[in-house]
Amino acid sequence: MTDLTETVRSLVTNKRFATIRDLFATMNAADIAPILSEQKESDLPLLFRLLSTETAAETFVEMNPEEQEMLIRSFSDTELKAVLDELYLDDAVDIIEEMPGILVPRILKAADPDSRKLINELLQYPDDSAGSIMTPEFVSLSPQETVEQAIEEIRKTGQDKETINICYVARADHTLIGSVTIRRILLSDPEDRIGDICDTNTVSCQTTDDQEEVAQLLSKYDLIAIPVVDNEKRIVGIVTIDDAVDVLSEENTEDIQKMAAITPSDRPYLETPVTNLFLHRIPWLLLLMLTSTMTELIINMFTDKMNVFGALAGAMLIACIPMLMDTGGNAGGQSSATVIRGISLGEIEFSDFFQVIGKELSVAAMSGTALGLLNFIKMLVVNAVLYHYEGEELHIYLIASLTISITILLTILVAKFSGSMLPMVAKKIGFDPAVMAAPFITTMIDVASLLLLYAMANVILLRII
Amino acid sequence: MTDLTETVRSLVTNKRFATIRDLFATMNAADIAPILSEQKESDLPLLFRLLSTETAAETFVEMNPEEQEMLIRSFSDTELKAVLDELYLDDAVDIIEEMPGILVPRILKAADPDSRKLINELLQYPDDSAGSIMTPEFVSLSPQETVEQAIEEIRKTGQDKETINICYVARADHTLIGSVTIRRILLSDPEDRIGDICDTNTVSCQTTDDQEEVAQLLSKYDLIAIPVVDNEKRIVGIVTIDDAVDVLSEENTEDIQKMAAITPSDRPYLETPVTNLFLHRIPWLLLLMLTSTMTELIINMFTDKMNVFGALAGAMLIACIPMLMDTGGNAGGQSSATVIRGISLGEIEFSDFFQVIGKELSVAAMSGTALGLLNFIKMLVVNAVLYHYEGEELHIYLIASLTISITILLTILVAKFSGSMLPMVAKKIGFDPAVMAAPFITTMIDVASLLLLYAMANVILLRII
Repeated sequence: MTDLTETVRSLVTNKRFATIRDLFATMNAADIAPILSEQKESDLPLLFRLLSTETAAETFVEMNPEEQEMLIRSFSDTELKAVLDELYLDDAVDIIEEMPGILVPRILKAADPDSRKLINELLQYPDDSAGSIMTPEFVSLSPQETVEQAIEEIRKTGQDKETINICYVARADHTLIGSVTIRRILLSDPEDRIGDICDTNTVSCQTTDDQEEVAQLLSKYDLIAIPVVDNEKRIVGIVTIDDAVDVLSEENTEDIQKMAAITPSDRPYLETPVTNLFLHRIPWLLLLMLTSTMTELIINMFTDKMNVFGALAGAMLIACIPMLMDTGGNAGGQSSATVIRGISLGEIEFSDFFQVIGKELSVAAMSGTALGLLNFIKMLVVNAVLYHYEGEELHIYLIASLTISITILLTILVAKFSGSMLPMVAKKIGFDPAVMAAPFITTMIDVASLLLLYAMANVILLRII
Repeated sequence: MTDLTETVRSLVTNKRFATIRDLFATMNAADIAPILSEQKESDLPLLFRLLSTETAAETFVEMNPEEQEMLIRSFSDTELKAVLDELYLDDAVDIIEEMPGILVPRILKAADPDSRKLINELLQYPDDSAGSIMTPEFVSLSPQETVEQAIEEIRKTGQDKETINICYVARADHTLIGSVTIRRILLSDPEDRIGDICDTNTVSCQTTDDQEEVAQLLSKYDLIAIPVVDNEKRIVGIVTIDDAVDVLSEENTEDIQKMAAITPSDRPYLETPVTNLFLHRIPWLLLLMLTSTMTELIINMFTDKMNVFGALAGAMLIACIPMLMDTGGNAGGQSSATVIRGISLGEIEFSDFFQVIGKELSVAAMSGTALGLLNFIKMLVVNAVLYHYEGEELHIYLIASLTISITILLTILVAKFSGSMLPMVAKKIGFDPAVMAAPFITTMIDVASLLLLYAMANVILLRII
């Protein structure tokens, strides 16, 4: 990639535009766009004019909003119209949504009247809804048509459709009846009626459905497109698999960002300015720093009671705190990540609540026992190798070690319980499960583990010493 | 879903099999499979026989390996052959890979000789390679054919192809020349030669390419299928978008699992036994618990020096440790999650190393200054409201607060630096970036933050008090 970027740059310097044109003719839009992005801004309009109309439109879609805006400003009305005519309407709508208000009338004016009307309709749908990502450019057939007529119709109008691989069958009032693949059409007898060969078990979605749910439907049913219907079951558009793949990828990125305490953004990292990164991260860091100062208050309880626990046991309790917090955080993080991903994939629902909690508590009991035991053994080894405590001191050392080991078990039980329960409850009450994830749960588990350690120190340590 | 499961169960009890058949005829395989999974195992073969041959094969693909095995054992040879004939070869291979060795010869024997040969070839490709997920059932056209001949050929052979939406053009020795969409074929003049209308800039992949990279290619270029070629550039199969969507989803799940310190598994959560969950989680918890005991040794340095720091400052330093560790962990987690996701999406490469580190250090400087400052203000407020220190004590309190605030800034610098650098270095040296993530980096940051606090206490606190 870098090499080609340099090559194009030096070709521009030497004004070898014919060579650039020939080079671009052998390339895909997805590869041309990043090369253009790296060229001098003033060369961009010129370079763009070296692309064929179709490639120009495809490359335009791949560029980032700032570059698109700059290009639109530099286009003549004729050039703008040429690009718009080649764009699918859903892509045109995506681009218009990113443009400053002042450019929108000019873009709409350049579109032909039919497209303008459809674009205006699509712009009305709420963000992240099926309506906002669908395209009205699908093949619609009538059930009365014969296969021969359908093929004729597809040949005539197919050029402007986003896909002809699957065609939709609807009544005259646009009510969706079913779908039929181009394969089925081609393999059928020319005299067959479309209504007789179409599949009426077609999965569809509503204009108001969330885009992530729609993308999951395409994935679940292995579809290449899904019809979108309005309240009266009239088909108004389709969402194609390439858009669904983008939606799923964006939603995954958002989930990962939320789990890592970042306000989501769909801008590629390298193109995001530092201040923007800062603003998406600082609120969570601030909030979490303030909530984690609760732990300060609890640790003060330990230092205040140092003389009660005794120097040796007191120091041991304080020294184990980071290990305890980390272990609890990791155990809870495993549960929350598992459950949040399960919810995203539709594998886990609220009706599975007790099954999930049961599983997590079982895993917690097994992990907690193993880790508690191992910690106790480790402390025995450390004493044999390092400290060589004997008599009364050994007694205190063993009881303190036991206290810590039991606290590990209890912390893991609490950690896995809250790590699995909170995302499900969040989803149930209409919250985003991913926002509930790691950082919040970690802070909760920190507080819980310290309180458990304090309680165990009072119950076990003080009773037995 | 639950309702239908119950309905089918009671229909089985009342032997209303005709009704079940009619019900299933209106449904999609992806919806039938979960209902069958919830029925009594002994009823499964019977229920399966109520499905049409095509739906039966599709439903079979959607079931889990245990159910598939049980069904294969209950099938007659004729039934097994009927299902196998309907399966696409890539699905057949996926299923065979999950079956116990003893069943495989029977399955292969039931396949027709041509399929058997192809299945055996596909089984040779390494796991997670393009070869292992491709299907050899694609439409191959010759460049000399006319459009009319091509349509005739597709009509004759299209039934058994995984897709006819895109056809591949190859020489007689199978060397890939390009591709042509069914749309382009249908819209072209019947006399045109395929070689003249095909697109020769076709993106392809190698049989040995990693499946995730192949899926990313489909996503990047908005393809519905990608041709797979061998070393001699001969086309041997295609990977379709529905399989790519599954691969991307699995890889995302794996990334999230690794970031949460879980050994990846592609089994749905609710179907995974507790011991399995335990075994996938415990190694990491153990390892991380052991590494985090390093922090114990560092805290002992603090308690040993308590009398040097003085009671007030010493207690303040120890009390702030969890807040410091959490803040560092969160700041580092933000960076590592961002960079790991960027690497997965192909947005960040090793050549961007210095740009990424520069961005993260800038964000760290801004966040660290903001959080350090806020922490200092918070400690002033706490004193005004709660402690009312004066004179010498106020002096110590302020210096200790300053020490802690500066440590916050330094910790965030270290956290964001290691959080962004480690995943990139891991990727560079052939490690999995996601495994480097949160838990490891958190442990590292814990140690670093405690050492920084200790150093700052010695440099600032002891010098100034």
